Amino acid sequence: MSQTTNHCYRLRHRPAGTVADDDLEFLQEPIPNIGPGQALIRTLWLSVDPANRIWMSEVHYNMPPVPIGGIMRGFGIGQVVESLRDDMKAGDLVSGITGWADYAVADATNLVPFSVLPSPLPTSPTLLLGPLGRTGVTAYLGVQDIGRPQPGETMVVSAAAGAVGSVAGQIGKARGARVVGTAGSREKCRHVVEALGFDACVNYRDTDWREQLDAATPDGIDVDFENVGGQILDHVVTRLNVGARIALCGLISEYNSYGSSAGQQARVSVDHILMSRALLRSFLVLDHTDRFPEAIAYLAGLVDEGKLRYDETVVEGLENARSALNQMFEGVNTGKLLIKVAEPL
Amino acid sequence: MSQTTNHCYRLRHRPAGTVADDDLEFLQEPIPNIGPGQALIRTLWLSVDPANRIWMSEVHYNMPPVPIGGIMRGFGIGQVVESLRDDMKAGDLVSGITGWADYAVADATNLVPFSVLPSPLPTSPTLLLGPLGRTGVTAYLGVQDIGRPQPGETMVVSAAAGAVGSVAGQIGKARGARVVGTAGSREKCRHVVEALGFDACVNYRDTDWREQLDAATPDGIDVDFENVGGQILDHVVTRLNVGARIALCGLISEYNSYGSSAGQQARVSVDHILMSRALLRSFLVLDHTDRFPEAIAYLAGLVDEGKLRYDETVVEGLENARSALNQMFEGVNTGKLLIKVAEPL
Repeated sequence: MSQTTNHCYRLRHRPAGTVADDDLEFLQEPIPNIGPGQALIRTLWLSVDPANRIWMSEVHYNMPPVPIGGIMRGFGIGQVVESLRDDMKAGDLVSGITGWADYAVADATNLVPFSVLPSPLPTSPTLLLGPLGRTGVTAYLGVQDIGRPQPGETMVVSAAAGAVGSVAGQIGKARGARVVGTAGSREKCRHVVEALGFDACVNYRDTDWREQLDAATPDGIDVDFENVGGQILDHVVTRLNVGARIALCGLISEYNSYGSSAGQQARVSVDHILMSRALLRSFLVLDHTDRFPEAIAYLAGLVDEGKLRYDETVVEGLENARSALNQMFEGVNTGKLLIKVAEPL
Repeated sequence: MSQTTNHCYRLRHRPAGTVADDDLEFLQEPIPNIGPGQALIRTLWLSVDPANRIWMSEVHYNMPPVPIGGIMRGFGIGQVVESLRDDMKAGDLVSGITGWADYAVADATNLVPFSVLPSPLPTSPTLLLGPLGRTGVTAYLGVQDIGRPQPGETMVVSAAAGAVGSVAGQIGKARGARVVGTAGSREKCRHVVEALGFDACVNYRDTDWREQLDAATPDGIDVDFENVGGQILDHVVTRLNVGARIALCGLISEYNSYGSSAGQQARVSVDHILMSRALLRSFLVLDHTDRFPEAIAYLAGLVDEGKLRYDETVVEGLENARSALNQMFEGVNTGKLLIKVAEPL
């Protein structure tokens, strides 16, 4: 083994706001020993997602909160170092909840079972954490099942430069909709329009962003792919057309308040939903694992046709994961935020 | 003709809060003259609905606001007095937007065309304004298309003693759900349980109504048929099970604020909708006129089987319509609120 120490993060306190150093402690521990039915996984890549922050809070979303003292939860791609399982052998690449640690144990207790990736890999492994993995499937389900934008309709995507939003908007374009993004800087907005092909993108840090969004959606809004919540969603619902659909994917503007006295205060005007006979539907990709093959085939097709551009922001080193998560809430990343933990053997 | 004067209400100001006497003026005018393609309708019954209050505001819901100076809009049942139309003859009973007036003109300009009722009528004419009309179909669409309660699931219905809520809850019972109502008095709650067959009903004027609602929904809430909004909806969303459905039918707690500075402020926690992967969907019966035959056949079947009990609160005299509408917002009526305007000839 190339190292004898298992760097890892353990949750010490549920954060109030931004994750502080003593909320999530970075430690060196012994590498776990494995027994029958277990395999030792070395983490190669970690996916940094808004859900990481939810799991630190007391909110039970898709999974129970990370217990105090527990290893920080996170999805990743790893490599089997040693295996006492029949279905895994040393060298295999696997995906699953590696956690924020150099090493993980794959066994029957994992909340989501590890799965062995095909060999040779058909694509870059990081794509499997991005557009051809849970991230892409999330966008697919929200657009295809809930938003269903039709040619000529107007679709708004918040966090348009983010991992899910960038894919969602491009699916909307492939379906023939007019797609308008919101993002947090002029550079991101330019990228969303020029590289990702959205029709327009509004920088929500501009003081006149509401007027800009109105101007970019002259025929109202038929579909909202919502990743942010807060003031952006507040304004979007005032422009909903009759029969509009809101795919409620996330509320990243809110998660940092979980654990503070202001927690879970995100609210939306229900009058406007009533008046527009709109649909608001939340969904979670992990509820729909049966749809992954269909979704990934569709997404891979878009990639092949050159209709799905994807970006990655890669942070080197597990020791930078905590600050990377905090920076995601500041909007630092474009596209998928990844931690590169180690090279494969 | 039995009278020569047309009593009617005209909208003078958009109300701020409760409808004042000088917002909606009660007048005596000449009976309209009709020309080719028109029929003169005498109003027999008026349906009093929360939508009446919305139409007085500047909010464009299902129809444009009543113009200032215009006759107050309202659905009703009338009788043809005189006809220059091929499809109507004197004596026919018709349903449509009679307006809040003794007489209306049925012609091509009506926002909703008048329709001639079958003769002889298969049922009491007021049922056609209640469970076998728009009111019942509203309940049907919200339960069958959106709520879809399954046997053993828990369904909550706000304004359970009201015209739509009472029907919605009974459809829920017919589908095998546990059905819990909320209503505004002890007497109404007793009626909802004993006469309408709900499993429980909570009086939202009790100080401990939240605890009562929690106790009545020990397994959480799978379906909410929402007529009220405000604090009731706020609390309901905290108890949603994963995959819950909210049929957003109305927000009667809010309409009286339309036109005031607090107008259209109803908000709901979107965090709770996100976390429960819930669906919130608004709908409007007038968007689904193609579904009326199916819905009314189902509802008539429930009536025949003794599974659909319906109540009417009848107010005599057009001159009492304005106060009746205000009283509906105080929760005075049980079941459908009707104004009896005149006897048929």
